[in-house]
Amino acid sequence: MTADTLAKNFDAIFNPKAVAVIGASSTFGKWGQLILSNIIAGNFGGKIFPVNPKEKSISGLTAYSRLLDIPEKVDLAFIATPAGAIPGILEECGEKGVRGVVLITSGFSETDEAGKRLEKHITSMCREKSLALVGPNTMGIICPYAKLFATGSHTRPREGSVAFVSQSGNLGLQLIHWAEEQGIGVSLFVGSGNEAMFSCTDYLEYLKDDPRTRIIVLYMETVGEGRRFLDVVRKVHSKKPVIVLKGGRTEAGRTAAASHTGSMGGKQTIFRAACRQAGLLDVRFPTELLDLSAGFSSLPLPRGNRVGIVTLGGGWGVVTADECNLRGLVIPDIPESIIETIGRYLPQFWSKGNPVDLVGTRDLEVPIVAVEELLKWEGIDAVISLGIVGRLELVRSLIESTREVDATVSEEFLKQMSALSREYEKDYIAKIVELMETYEKPIIGVSLANTNEGTVRPVAGKRYSGLFYQTPENAVNVLARMVDYNRFVS
Amino acid sequence: MTADTLAKNFDAIFNPKAVAVIGASSTFGKWGQLILSNIIAGNFGGKIFPVNPKEKSISGLTAYSRLLDIPEKVDLAFIATPAGAIPGILEECGEKGVRGVVLITSGFSETDEAGKRLEKHITSMCREKSLALVGPNTMGIICPYAKLFATGSHTRPREGSVAFVSQSGNLGLQLIHWAEEQGIGVSLFVGSGNEAMFSCTDYLEYLKDDPRTRIIVLYMETVGEGRRFLDVVRKVHSKKPVIVLKGGRTEAGRTAAASHTGSMGGKQTIFRAACRQAGLLDVRFPTELLDLSAGFSSLPLPRGNRVGIVTLGGGWGVVTADECNLRGLVIPDIPESIIETIGRYLPQFWSKGNPVDLVGTRDLEVPIVAVEELLKWEGIDAVISLGIVGRLELVRSLIESTREVDATVSEEFLKQMSALSREYEKDYIAKIVELMETYEKPIIGVSLANTNEGTVRPVAGKRYSGLFYQTPENAVNVLARMVDYNRFVS
Repeated sequence: MTADTLAKNFDAIFNPKAVAVIGASSTFGKWGQLILSNIIAGNFGGKIFPVNPKEKSISGLTAYSRLLDIPEKVDLAFIATPAGAIPGILEECGEKGVRGVVLITSGFSETDEAGKRLEKHITSMCREKSLALVGPNTMGIICPYAKLFATGSHTRPREGSVAFVSQSGNLGLQLIHWAEEQGIGVSLFVGSGNEAMFSCTDYLEYLKDDPRTRIIVLYMETVGEGRRFLDVVRKVHSKKPVIVLKGGRTEAGRTAAASHTGSMGGKQTIFRAACRQAGLLDVRFPTELLDLSAGFSSLPLPRGNRVGIVTLGGGWGVVTADECNLRGLVIPDIPESIIETIGRYLPQFWSKGNPVDLVGTRDLEVPIVAVEELLKWEGIDAVISLGIVGRLELVRSLIESTREVDATVSEEFLKQMSALSREYEKDYIAKIVELMETYEKPIIGVSLANTNEGTVRPVAGKRYSGLFYQTPENAVNVLARMVDYNRFVS
Repeated sequence: MTADTLAKNFDAIFNPKAVAVIGASSTFGKWGQLILSNIIAGNFGGKIFPVNPKEKSISGLTAYSRLLDIPEKVDLAFIATPAGAIPGILEECGEKGVRGVVLITSGFSETDEAGKRLEKHITSMCREKSLALVGPNTMGIICPYAKLFATGSHTRPREGSVAFVSQSGNLGLQLIHWAEEQGIGVSLFVGSGNEAMFSCTDYLEYLKDDPRTRIIVLYMETVGEGRRFLDVVRKVHSKKPVIVLKGGRTEAGRTAAASHTGSMGGKQTIFRAACRQAGLLDVRFPTELLDLSAGFSSLPLPRGNRVGIVTLGGGWGVVTADECNLRGLVIPDIPESIIETIGRYLPQFWSKGNPVDLVGTRDLEVPIVAVEELLKWEGIDAVISLGIVGRLELVRSLIESTREVDATVSEEFLKQMSALSREYEKDYIAKIVELMETYEKPIIGVSLANTNEGTVRPVAGKRYSGLFYQTPENAVNVLARMVDYNRFVS
């Protein structure tokens, strides 16, 4: 059976109706407990069968001694038993008609020669038995649309359009944890582990046609079948942006990667040059993978590199303009007519240019007026808006102080102020998203505040989302990369 | 009177016994309310006199019609009235024997020719009357040791060793807000505003000999007296690290700065070359100012560029090693003896090298053993430790899931797990700090978690602090810059 045929089994893995957890446990912190409790707590919609010969019941579910004892059909088996037991379990999987296996267990090719042999053996067993194999040495998978959260760390991002494939489980899961915190919607996460059967390239092929996936994030340390990878990724990337971080770009990183995944990272310079040629979005830091995911999944693509900046404070306008210039983005002069319209809302001595400095205004209309005036002008391809949404944080602390020091200010008034600020923020986000739909140009927010609200702020029923990075450099980086991608596809 | 003599008045500004707020208000959100309520809520230890001709009492304090009506001595006056009223107020300040003025009011040289003339006039008035003048067009000052928090935004960082001087109030205050969130200790904040009397250079001269200040952060858009600035900063920097962000490095940034502060940014290439020559730590992003502040104020200086990496996950070790290499830091091979000692705590197939990959161990001793083994070896100058402290976040979500899905696990057990994790983290931080004191080498943590605990984690009675950045790139950047500074001073 070819990998291609097996790929058809991906549906059994990523959208199963019934799963077994072999090696399920009720011992706090064991892999068999981590995975099982995560699947249950994540409200998986299908059936869940714990398998453990020593238990009658785990987490309120009937536990079975062996896979074959389960009285119903099983599509997918998670396996977290010691390596030696795996061949026997795979026999049972074959007999039971299981279609996919996620093999958490480590101790295979990442260790020594015996481990390599064992991995080879179980892989050919899987092929014989038509078992699609994720791993071994994987930290699991997450399929938000199936409500299947099957990883060791309990992180449950919302449904969305970004797929993550990671050769490092630990790094990949941390990314997903951040994605959850930031409100980035996820279509799929796979820790590809040792890639005994499926490589990143195979997952890419699957994701190319997955209708829920619009953006693909890869963390790779090794590239097997370099030419095939480049062929596939080029095809995918012209349809859906592929954002790549290659670990092991330096001597020290390669040495670290070799001891970690058991295979060498390959010729980095050649790889990067090829990635560049394919137009891939290769990044340097893991957090950039998230920043770009958030941008591509929330905004329309900019059609050019001309940026309007709207800021509540002069200094932030200056550093943002600097960073735009350094990244090849242009801050054009704006026409008199725009200056005049915005000027109606501002004190006489405002900056009268781009960046539009709102000089700490408390007028509630002008932040939106300024953004729209810039956006609707044909000389601008994107707007960066600084400080409006984060302001809520400052109002909060002012209200606290006022409550503390001034007994003459009524509690009702302060509550009203607080509610007004919250409503204003919500309203502002809704308007921003509306403007993006009207003009099909991106608006990138910078909150400056470390809010708990997340970077991505979806608006019900809308195609685009509000997007608020904490710092201008993140916003500019994402915009610059989106401009690159637009050039590549247009 | 010379600026030098006036600088002696800085003590009246930064450590006053009695302050007046002229233009004090009880109208929520007005400058006179922002400043006054912040000073009161911040528990300023001295006397506070609101001045407002229309009020009898503001925030529970007696309000005075005029400054001269205040029956006691006043050291420092905050002024937030319209620009036209300032000359009259300065007359009163002179008569009253006030020594310092913080002039919040804008509408001076940043606007037009008339504004420039008015600024010149009030500056010479201040000189005549021996009034030290901060501003105009400043967002205020923060003096944590005097418990004087006198800015528009209500942010109150803890006492510490980092002084901030910012030509942009808005940007500077956001930095202070982040400093507070991250636990960075602050000795002083000054928004220098239009710098009518004192320039950044004057503040630098003052801070050079301020015993509480060990690190100086500058945000500058314009450099008056370029040669004097470089002379002074060179002297200061050889005693205390000076970290600089120059806004207006590009054409677009300079244009923005010109409209914002009313003066041109000057020849950037020359300035940067001169800064480099002076060994200054010039940074590109505002957040770097904070990262470096946290590092320099929490850690001993590294004596070289050889780094040991300890990681809970292989992928993070790889990207950290890559980033070290790209920044000129070396990841040396470690001797057999260290591998043997650490190996006693780990499964047989661990990485056996640097990075030390703890392969997700739950052993509680080995994270400290590994750090100490590396640290005490003469071949290592610094250690980066990844993932240990942030783990608490993951344990938290696991406890939540377990509570939800498994009724057989007792609440008492889960509470115990939670308490153990918290204690472990506290204990780990205490040991890390102890190790830094023993070996006089820095240990930089990477939490990976977006904790609410802050980047800097002080330990009572200790010179150094635990330090945990969220990402490896931040940790590596700080370490690389500290290595640079060590080369410069040694």
